[in-house]
Amino acid sequence: MASAAASGFDGPLIPVHPKRATVFGRPAAASLRDLAEPVDLAFIMTPLQAVEEVLDDAAQAGVPGVVVLASGYRENGEQGRILQDRLTARAAGHGITLLGPNCLGFLNAHARVAPFALTIPLPLLAGPVGIALQSGALASVLLSFARAHAIGVSTLASLGNEAMISTSDVIDYLIEDDHTKVIGLFLEEIGDAAAFTAAAVKADQAGKPIVALKVGTSQAGSAAALAHTGSVAGDDAVIDAALRQLNVVRVTSIEELLSTAAVLGYSRWPAGRRMGAVTTSGGACDLIADRASGEGIELPAFAEATVEAISAHVPSFAEVRNPLDVTGYFLANQRTSTLTPSDLALDHAAADPALDFVIYTGLTLPDAKPPDEAMADALDARAAWLAERVASAPVPIIPIGSTCVDLSEYGRSLLGRHGLHVLAGIDLGVRAIGNALRWMEGRGWLEGRGNLAAPKLVTRVTPVSTSGPWAETDARTLLQDFNIPVVPATLAHSADDAVRAAAGFGYPVAVKVSSAAITHKSELGGVALGLSTDAAVERAYDQVVAAAGDEAIDGVTVAPMRKGGVELLAGVTVDPTFGPVLAVGLGGIWVEVLGDVSLRVLPAGPAQVRQMLGELRGLPLLTGGRGQVPADLDKLSAVIASIGDAALSLGSALRSLEINPLWVNGDQVEALDVLVITESEPRS
Amino acid sequence: MASAAASGFDGPLIPVHPKRATVFGRPAAASLRDLAEPVDLAFIMTPLQAVEEVLDDAAQAGVPGVVVLASGYRENGEQGRILQDRLTARAAGHGITLLGPNCLGFLNAHARVAPFALTIPLPLLAGPVGIALQSGALASVLLSFARAHAIGVSTLASLGNEAMISTSDVIDYLIEDDHTKVIGLFLEEIGDAAAFTAAAVKADQAGKPIVALKVGTSQAGSAAALAHTGSVAGDDAVIDAALRQLNVVRVTSIEELLSTAAVLGYSRWPAGRRMGAVTTSGGACDLIADRASGEGIELPAFAEATVEAISAHVPSFAEVRNPLDVTGYFLANQRTSTLTPSDLALDHAAADPALDFVIYTGLTLPDAKPPDEAMADALDARAAWLAERVASAPVPIIPIGSTCVDLSEYGRSLLGRHGLHVLAGIDLGVRAIGNALRWMEGRGWLEGRGNLAAPKLVTRVTPVSTSGPWAETDARTLLQDFNIPVVPATLAHSADDAVRAAAGFGYPVAVKVSSAAITHKSELGGVALGLSTDAAVERAYDQVVAAAGDEAIDGVTVAPMRKGGVELLAGVTVDPTFGPVLAVGLGGIWVEVLGDVSLRVLPAGPAQVRQMLGELRGLPLLTGGRGQVPADLDKLSAVIASIGDAALSLGSALRSLEINPLWVNGDQVEALDVLVITESEPRS
Repeated sequence: MASAAASGFDGPLIPVHPKRATVFGRPAAASLRDLAEPVDLAFIMTPLQAVEEVLDDAAQAGVPGVVVLASGYRENGEQGRILQDRLTARAAGHGITLLGPNCLGFLNAHARVAPFALTIPLPLLAGPVGIALQSGALASVLLSFARAHAIGVSTLASLGNEAMISTSDVIDYLIEDDHTKVIGLFLEEIGDAAAFTAAAVKADQAGKPIVALKVGTSQAGSAAALAHTGSVAGDDAVIDAALRQLNVVRVTSIEELLSTAAVLGYSRWPAGRRMGAVTTSGGACDLIADRASGEGIELPAFAEATVEAISAHVPSFAEVRNPLDVTGYFLANQRTSTLTPSDLALDHAAADPALDFVIYTGLTLPDAKPPDEAMADALDARAAWLAERVASAPVPIIPIGSTCVDLSEYGRSLLGRHGLHVLAGIDLGVRAIGNALRWMEGRGWLEGRGNLAAPKLVTRVTPVSTSGPWAETDARTLLQDFNIPVVPATLAHSADDAVRAAAGFGYPVAVKVSSAAITHKSELGGVALGLSTDAAVERAYDQVVAAAGDEAIDGVTVAPMRKGGVELLAGVTVDPTFGPVLAVGLGGIWVEVLGDVSLRVLPAGPAQVRQMLGELRGLPLLTGGRGQVPADLDKLSAVIASIGDAALSLGSALRSLEINPLWVNGDQVEALDVLVITESEPRS
Repeated sequence: MASAAASGFDGPLIPVHPKRATVFGRPAAASLRDLAEPVDLAFIMTPLQAVEEVLDDAAQAGVPGVVVLASGYRENGEQGRILQDRLTARAAGHGITLLGPNCLGFLNAHARVAPFALTIPLPLLAGPVGIALQSGALASVLLSFARAHAIGVSTLASLGNEAMISTSDVIDYLIEDDHTKVIGLFLEEIGDAAAFTAAAVKADQAGKPIVALKVGTSQAGSAAALAHTGSVAGDDAVIDAALRQLNVVRVTSIEELLSTAAVLGYSRWPAGRRMGAVTTSGGACDLIADRASGEGIELPAFAEATVEAISAHVPSFAEVRNPLDVTGYFLANQRTSTLTPSDLALDHAAADPALDFVIYTGLTLPDAKPPDEAMADALDARAAWLAERVASAPVPIIPIGSTCVDLSEYGRSLLGRHGLHVLAGIDLGVRAIGNALRWMEGRGWLEGRGNLAAPKLVTRVTPVSTSGPWAETDARTLLQDFNIPVVPATLAHSADDAVRAAAGFGYPVAVKVSSAAITHKSELGGVALGLSTDAAVERAYDQVVAAAGDEAIDGVTVAPMRKGGVELLAGVTVDPTFGPVLAVGLGGIWVEVLGDVSLRVLPAGPAQVRQMLGELRGLPLLTGGRGQVPADLDKLSAVIASIGDAALSLGSALRSLEINPLWVNGDQVEALDVLVITESEPRS
């Protein structure tokens, strides 16, 4: 009620209470059925036990939408889940759209509607940032930071248990909403990956950036999310990869979420990473340079003409360079214009052809309106000038504060009057700009690269009948079906067989027991490598057979050893949320010790795989570092993409498909070992 | 003047101006010589040209201290340096202590003295944080963040060019100052490493943490620092290592600097990393868990008794776990006590034996005093209760806000009245706590580990006469003098010699050209490895000699090859600021591709080297990962420490001493190759 009033809503608000005659000081109806006029929305604040009855009342009264605050549903175990399903079915049966349960409601700052159960920090500023939260209680926290920095909100929704309206639905709504320029999310889980993917693709196409604070990066974090939402959190590395694939900017704090949304919602979008900086302190320059370096933002030198033009406005002892410190010298001197030297320098910097955008720390806002009318007017004139430049300078100008402190009421009103926005300090501001640049660079990716939203279908003709690991020969056949080069091999059934095969390939050779029952052959002694003589092959044959113990074996595989080159791991696992995920890394220490892998939700085409290789820290080993022959990365990417396709061809039976090692030496690429695990599908 | 008044200073302030009768509305004297009463400090705001004359006046008037604001000294090139030297000499000659030049002055919030040339954000709160800044203009930025979060300052000094009073002098002062509990620094350079080291050691011993925002992490950052201070910035990796060695907590933003200082200045110090968290939102729990994981802070499960005790205060659907969400449920319900469920839960958590400290987000402060007197009283009572618990609970309780927004004036006054402090949001707050824990864990390191402040002197009997790389035999002798195991080797002068030597060692062997003139033997073809036959050694002899071309050679070194094990790099270089620095890493890709090295300013004893090995990402290769024999890390550490000693023995002649590779296999450690470069000292 207070929230609704606070938002400026001036339509009728009618409390309903079965027993009390007045609620919040207003006359109350006893039931929704008693209302004289049609109602757009019922905000149901009753205990769980009464919700269904009120829902029936709402249906009777022709109420099309409800918000359900009550807890005790899905987040409360199996019994709660049953209650929630019943509630959802009942609402659906009535044709009622339901937000929640276990949610705090929503607010629309432009429409001035706020059926919201938490106090809203006032004033609530309407603006370009749409927000969906899976933790409603954080709404007031977000709104208090937004208020402090005059970040305006379009619609904010607390999603609760998403019984009917999901995160993706709200994203869809915000994409359509003309007031929303950027979408901010607080996520504990991504329940329906397909719907989320579709919404993210739509947002990217519509040019509406999504910025997401997805919690659960830590084990402990996942546990907390589990308790809170009753949902199993996915593996964080997969979520990270999937969000990057979907061009959703992932952030780690509320402050970063809102600051990033503010850059994207309030600033013109830069065309590149070449930043100019105009400040009034050398220390600020140092901080900006450090943060920019951390974000991969360039600070190119000013063009000569820029240096010359700026020199006219700064003291002779100030060095004109980027980032620029115009020095505090002017503070102590009389000025003839309302514009400061930093303003004038900014104007020149924004005309520099070497720059894509300029950040500006020169607009310092006082705690209150200056008592001296002339000073207040001068500040107003500067703000008007800056607003004009922000709107029409050759490159975007982004005003930024020096540290993260609240704007004063006066500051907010001055900025608001001129349509200006100032980022919340150098640290957050430059990080937010880095995030925004990453989003801009990622735009359009989704169309170009093995679109997640429209997976390529690779159907297998024969259904999968194996439950568990495949025999090596079957796995090799699968790879060959997808034109994946596999090291030649012979399945030997006697030591003599093995020696003959080895002679055929030429020494040295590798000998491995072939058994679907044994997935970790090396650890058991089922593999012998680098054998150079007939006698060694004979001994190895007996050894690897013995290692199998009582397990059934298909025979012993003999294959030539590959020399030189680099070994990779290329494997596909199935994430509970996003489905098949491709992992690529260099073998050995790179994966085992350094965890140096790149992940992509499948499908991924060769171009995407090429990007994955580029993300590996061990990349220099593939590009000719340390005396290696440079690998044919295009060929390698094509082979790895085919490995992904082979995995996808197994459909829902897929559990794991792993090539380890995948050997590459120049333009030679070969799978040296393969493990396929499936779970046969029940006949339908 | 305004600053001085703002600080509450009520002593006499007398403006001096050669021409004007009044300044800042006060009657002005024409010269310091005209003052009737003795003056403690002269704040010299004149242009550079007049400073020396005013200094003479000050001497005449018996003024013991001056602050010089003028710029154009050391930061302005050679001519400025001469002027600065002259100014310093003049002050010293007069017995005057000079702060600056090119500085903004200082303030002492407890003594209410503020000879300071920038506006001070009001009110200025006196407190435990002492601050020294190499960029004066940032002072108002720092103070505005400090004000926003009621972080009280003891003394803040802008150092300017440090002509007489250095950073280390101010640290020394702050260590002695009883009002200062923690020292915050903004550093652009560490000019005098010895003085800084001594000050840091003293601070550690006194239990006064130093938190430093040292800029210049980026190349661009260094360039900015160069322009601003006229000093050459050191290599950032060395600075990072040195600060860690000195137990100085390095931070990357102003917000992190002050938040970390606030934890250390206001909170009781936890005995360990086991954190409890009591919140009123699941989202806050998720954020806390993620941030804690990033900081290596543990969130152990509550003891059973704690769970039971807390369960009585939270709704049945709330799960009692750490981090704890007491839910927002109580907001909607009547309470019988002034204490909230979160308060009561906090009290139980702080008694949990599994925890070292508890953070608490439950104290939400309104924008203004609640108009309802009873509510205001209840809030006051809660604050009083919390203050009592913070002071006397079994483990430290650290109140923390949910996001980084300013405290309201009412909030500041409420907290101030009860001596409470609230950290600036979950992100900054948990990071600050992580920083504080690292400082606590580092305390006392300085005494235990090859104390930087009192370097062990390893004097070389014979002075170094070589300028450039040493002959291999000389370098081998140096290592042997320090009991560093070196692979046996013979210097051969003919192919026959080489074959004989190889036979003596047993095959395989390595053959290398020995020449002081050739430092990159491998690249030139001057090294042949893994030779297994007499013929191969003969061929290799001719090849490596040929590779030397016209360079003078001492002969050809023949040495046995070492099989298995792991190769390291252990090298000493000389940093312009900190002197000899030891670098240790695994060889090959680890150093070349991954940059996986640990650095220490020398001297470093075996215990410190052991820590260095622990910092390597490749550590698993030394501890038996990937099928390796576990290395004897104690022996390895002792050998590497001796390498550091050998380098130090070369005194100021040292340029570089590098063992690459240093081979380790179980308890065998051997230098396989060594390069020593010196610059002979001019005779004194």
